[in-house]
Amino acid sequence: MYNINGESAMVNYPNGKKSTWTVRTASAGGRGMALEKDINTTNDSYLSDDLAVIHKKPTPVTIVKVDYPQRSAAKITEAYFKIPSTTDYNGIYKGKYIDFEAKECASRTSFPLKSIHMHQIRHLESVLRHGGIAFVIVRWVEYDETWFVEADRMIAFVDRAERRSIPHEWFVQNGALIPSSYIRPVDYLKIVDRLYFSKGGTTPDGR
Amino acid sequence: MYNINGESAMVNYPNGKKSTWTVRTASAGGRGMALEKDINTTNDSYLSDDLAVIHKKPTPVTIVKVDYPQRSAAKITEAYFKIPSTTDYNGIYKGKYIDFEAKECASRTSFPLKSIHMHQIRHLESVLRHGGIAFVIVRWVEYDETWFVEADRMIAFVDRAERRSIPHEWFVQNGALIPSSYIRPVDYLKIVDRLYFSKGGTTPDGR
Repeated sequence: MYNINGESAMVNYPNGKKSTWTVRTASAGGRGMALEKDINTTNDSYLSDDLAVIHKKPTPVTIVKVDYPQRSAAKITEAYFKIPSTTDYNGIYKGKYIDFEAKECASRTSFPLKSIHMHQIRHLESVLRHGGIAFVIVRWVEYDETWFVEADRMIAFVDRAERRSIPHEWFVQNGALIPSSYIRPVDYLKIVDRLYFSKGGTTPDGR
Repeated sequence: MYNINGESAMVNYPNGKKSTWTVRTASAGGRGMALEKDINTTNDSYLSDDLAVIHKKPTPVTIVKVDYPQRSAAKITEAYFKIPSTTDYNGIYKGKYIDFEAKECASRTSFPLKSIHMHQIRHLESVLRHGGIAFVIVRWVEYDETWFVEADRMIAFVDRAERRSIPHEWFVQNGALIPSSYIRPVDYLKIVDRLYFSKGGTTPDGR
């Protein structure tokens, strides 16, 4: 989530002017925040409707120095971002363990594989092996599309490793577009229902 | 299948001295670290044996200020500890969602309820409602005992709220002692197996 290098290609057009090149300064806090916020809003809605209990894990940091001023809260004065050992989101839905990673993609053509750490891929693989539901959510910012990709498909692509990025077309062929509403901006459980809880069983429809 | 009576008498005095009272100083950074380390070691063993995928969530912090020195890692220079909204540990075991909180208790007589936040209790309750396995691990440092308590029992105690702490005797009556080995210092899945995966089903005997 905070691989600074990964941001070098992230070019944004805040004013709608394509000729203006505004290179987003790499900010660990800022990248992918829109998608994260949307998923958090969605998870809050699931939680308050008692539909599912799914949370984002806190950002992992290594805490080096902490000040304990009298009569006030402990203040961390030196800490560093850690590479996450798992995915960002997990929880429970209809008795099943749910686990996923979410990434924004700024390119119009392909999703760089370095966005997802190899141990996150291996983690998703473990989850599948133990009977959980694992997937990846990728938002193509330029197209305003948020895709749901089952982990096994993503893993298969990564393991074949024919290229260092996944073309947009692959998502169209292998993913499912996640519906969006004001209350649930990334209503991914709709896709989970269709893929894992519909009468058709685990065979996805519509793709 | 939940015969704790045989184990309840297992009280350990590390130095063999029953008369020595060692008062542990409570420090936010160091508190509960031994138990956390033991559970992490155990989880690592479960993971490397491909038995379960259970991780500790990172400590939640609010990041206020980050420095980006050139050519080196981003440095967090101001951050604060946040009250966790969920429990510390979750994952998947034998296809089931697992969720628990772990606490050390320095007292010889009672476990203060304030050690567990009310929203953590409510979180455990949600997990149960959605079909997960939820529990609390409490280490009584002075007795060198690590207890497994099913979440429903802990919740029932908290909701009755007759007192602000849980006496040691309650753990003896309601919990199960977690076995320990060098490789798995807190082998809690042994208890999970006995309670949720044995032939006796989920109906505990002996209570």
